[in-house]
Amino acid sequence: MSTRILENVRKTKPLIHNITNYVTVNDCANILLACGASPIMADDTAEVEEITQICNGLTINIGTLNHNTIPAMFLAGKRANELQHPVILDPVGAGASSLRTDTAKKLIEQVSCAVIRGNISEIKSLALGDHTTKGVDADIADTITNETLDSVIAFAKEFSERTGAIIAITGAIDIVANQNKAYVVHNGHHMMAKTTGTGCMLSTMITAFIVANRSTPLEAVAAGVCAMGLCGEKAYDRMQKIGGGNSSFRHYLIDEISLLDDAALQEGSKYELR
Amino acid sequence: MSTRILENVRKTKPLIHNITNYVTVNDCANILLACGASPIMADDTAEVEEITQICNGLTINIGTLNHNTIPAMFLAGKRANELQHPVILDPVGAGASSLRTDTAKKLIEQVSCAVIRGNISEIKSLALGDHTTKGVDADIADTITNETLDSVIAFAKEFSERTGAIIAITGAIDIVANQNKAYVVHNGHHMMAKTTGTGCMLSTMITAFIVANRSTPLEAVAAGVCAMGLCGEKAYDRMQKIGGGNSSFRHYLIDEISLLDDAALQEGSKYELR
Amino acid sequence: MSTRILENVRKTKPLIHNITNYVTVNDCANILLACGASPIMADDTAEVEEITQICNGLTINIGTLNHNTIPAMFLAGKRANELQHPVILDPVGAGASSLRTDTAKKLIEQVSCAVIRGNISEIKSLALGDHTTKGVDADIADTITNETLDSVIAFAKEFSERTGAIIAITGAIDIVANQNKAYVVHNGHHMMAKTTGTGCMLSTMITAFIVANRSTPLEAVAAGVCAMGLCGEKAYDRMQKIGGGNSSFRHYLIDEISLLDDAALQEGSKYELR
Repeated sequence: MSTRILENVRKTKPLIHNITNYVTVNDCANILLACGASPIMADDTAEVEEITQICNGLTINIGTLNHNTIPAMFLAGKRANELQHPVILDPVGAGASSLRTDTAKKLIEQVSCAVIRGNISEIKSLALGDHTTKGVDADIADTITNETLDSVIAFAKEFSERTGAIIAITGAIDIVANQNKAYVVHNGHHMMAKTTGTGCMLSTMITAFIVANRSTPLEAVAAGVCAMGLCGEKAYDRMQKIGGGNSSFRHYLIDEISLLDDAALQEGSKYELR
Repeated sequence: MSTRILENVRKTKPLIHNITNYVTVNDCANILLACGASPIMADDTAEVEEITQICNGLTINIGTLNHNTIPAMFLAGKRANELQHPVILDPVGAGASSLRTDTAKKLIEQVSCAVIRGNISEIKSLALGDHTTKGVDADIADTITNETLDSVIAFAKEFSERTGAIIAITGAIDIVANQNKAYVVHNGHHMMAKTTGTGCMLSTMITAFIVANRSTPLEAVAAGVCAMGLCGEKAYDRMQKIGGGNSSFRHYLIDEISLLDDAALQEGSKYELR
Repeated sequence: MSTRILENVRKTKPLIHNITNYVTVNDCANILLACGASPIMADDTAEVEEITQICNGLTINIGTLNHNTIPAMFLAGKRANELQHPVILDPVGAGASSLRTDTAKKLIEQVSCAVIRGNISEIKSLALGDHTTKGVDADIADTITNETLDSVIAFAKEFSERTGAIIAITGAIDIVANQNKAYVVHNGHHMMAKTTGTGCMLSTMITAFIVANRSTPLEAVAAGVCAMGLCGEKAYDRMQKIGGGNSSFRHYLIDEISLLDDAALQEGSKYELR
C-alpha cells in the first residue's frame, strides 16, 4: 500500500459534498476534518448541483432518505459524474424497505459510482434482483467469516464488474474488491458495531481518500477501510484504559483518525490480497 | 424489580424504530446501542410502515416535528398498533406551540401508546383540555416536589386510566404510573437538565426496555427511569473527577448505560411504590 | 468589558429559538446549556412564530437550508423583529451556492438582524453585490491577518452601517464591529477549524449573550467571541494532556464553556479596540 495515502488527503484538503442522514452527520463532518478533508452538507435540489461543483467528491448516504433528499441525490450524483468527481454510495438499510432498496438500485443505474460501501446484507439487497437467480442468492452468506470468504469475494468481484464500482463490504472481515482483485482486511474491533456511525464515517472518509488518490482508487479504498479498523482497535485500547463505554469509544475513534499518519497506517494495516 | 430487565434487552437485541428530532437523534441511536438494542431512524411516509414492521417497537418524539414527519408518525403508530408493537410517545415541547400540543393530542387519540414520557408541563399540556376542568389544572403544580408529589401521582394515574398508557413524568423526582400503581424514582442528578437529550434518550431506551420485557411493562419503564437516573449519578462522579463540564457529562452518561448491568441497577435504584 | 456578561446569561437563562442546520445542531443545544441559556429548535412554518414568541432571541443558521426551512426563517425573523427579540444570522456557506447567498441577502433585507456572524468569505458574499464595485471587492482580502486587518475593519464598519447589525467576522483574528467601533480579538486556536460546529456554536451563544445583555450589545458579542476563543485555547491544552484529537477537542470546548465564569473570561480575553 502506498506510503502517502493520508499525506495526499492532508495536502490536498479535498472538499467533500455529503447528502447524508441526520443521525450520524456530525460524526461524518468530524471524521472528514480528522482525516484532513473538509465537509459540506447540502441536500436541497435548488443547490446540490452548485455545491457538488465546488467540491471534489460526493458521498450519498441513504440513511434517512426522504422525498426531498432523494431527487437531490440523483441531481448531485449526475452532476458529479459530469464533472468526473468520485461518487461514493452508502446504501444504509437497503433491504429494510422498498424505498431504500429501490432508491439505491436506481442510483446505481443512473449514477456511476466509484465505490459502493455497505454491510453484506445491504450489498446483497442491491446486487441480487432480476439479473440474478435465487440459486446465487442462496449461495451468498449473510456474514463474512473464513468459511464464507471465498464466495463473498467472488460475489463482490462480480458485482464490481457489473457496476463498475469498487465494492466495499464491511463486517467482522472487510472486503474491498474491483472485478480483478480483492483486499481482505482484518483490522477492526467488535465495538465498532456498538456505536452508531462507524459505517457512515468510513464511507465519507473513503470519498476523501479516493479523491486525494485518484490514480490508485482500489488501494485508497482499502487504506480507508484499514485506517478505520485500525483506529477502532486503538480506540478500544484507550476506552479500556479509562474504563469507558460506547460513547468514549466513538470519541476516541475520531481522535485516532485525526492522530493517524501513513507510517502508523502501514504498520497497523492487516490485509491480504486475493 | 426483576433482576433480568437489562439482560432481557441484551439477549433479545430489539430493533427500535425512531421517528425523532434531529437535535438528539445521534444520542438516541447510541443509547439504544449502549443498552443492548439496535436503532433505525426512518421518517418518510413512503417507508415508515415497512420499517415499523421489521422493528420490535416504535419511539415517536415530536422534538422537531414538521409537515413531512407528522403524517409519518401517524402511519407508523397505527401500523405498530396493528402489529402489537409497543409505541412510546415523547411529546417534546407540548404546550410550547399549538402544532406540538395538537399533534401529540391527536397521536394519543389515534395511536394506542404503551408509554407517554415527558416533563410535568408537557404531560399537563396533553392531559388537560376539554375533558378536564380548569380547577383540576390549577391543582397540578409545575414541578414535582415532595409537597406536590401526591397530587402529581393522582394526576398521572388518572391520565393513565384515560389513555391506557403508562405515564412517565420525569424531573427532580420521577413518577412512573399506570392507573393503579406508581413508582416514585429518586435517582438522577441536576446535571441531566444541563445537557440536551437526556429525556429523548430515556424515552427510546424505555421502548427497548418495554419491548424486551413485555410481561412486566410498568416495571420495565420504572427500571428505565432508574437506570438513566443512576447512570446520571455515576456520570456526574466521573465528570467531577476529571474536572469536566456538560459535554463530558453527556458522554459519560451514555458510557455508563453501556457498562450497566442488572446487579448494579438493582443496587443503585432508589424508588418507592405508591 | 463588563464583569457580568456570563452571570447575566446564567441568571436570566434566556430561551433561544434556533432554526439551524442538522450537522451541528446538537452542539448548538449543548453550548447554549453550557453558557446558561436554554435551546429550542423548531423549523416548521406552522409553529415557528409561536415558538419565537415564547423565546427571548432567535438564531438563524442557513447551514442546511431547504425549501421547507427557508420560509420558516423569514416568518420567525419577522416575528422576532415585531417582538424586538434579537435575531442573529449565521450565513453558513454564503457564496457557495446562489441559494445560500440569495437567502442570506434577502434575510438581511427583510429581517433586522442584531448580529451577522460568519467567516470573511461568507460576509463578503453578503456585503458585496450591486451596491459595491469590483474594485472594493478586490480590496478585501480573503483572510484576516495583521496586514489586512485595517481594511477588514473598515469593511466591517461599513457593512454594519449599511445593515444596522453588529458584524462579527471570525478567523485566525476575529473582528466584532458596529459602525463606529471594532473589537479585534486575538483569542482562539487553530484546532477550532479542525472540528465542525465551532462557528455555529459561537453564533447561537452570541444570541444568548446579547439577549442577556441588551444594553451593551457590542460588548456582549465581543465577549462571546472572546469566550469561545479562550475556551478553544483551554480545550487545546486539555486535549494535549491526554494525547487526544479533534473529537476530544470539541468535547472539551463545550466543557470549558460550561466551566467558564466572568472572572476567567476577563482574565483570558485578548482584544484591542479600534
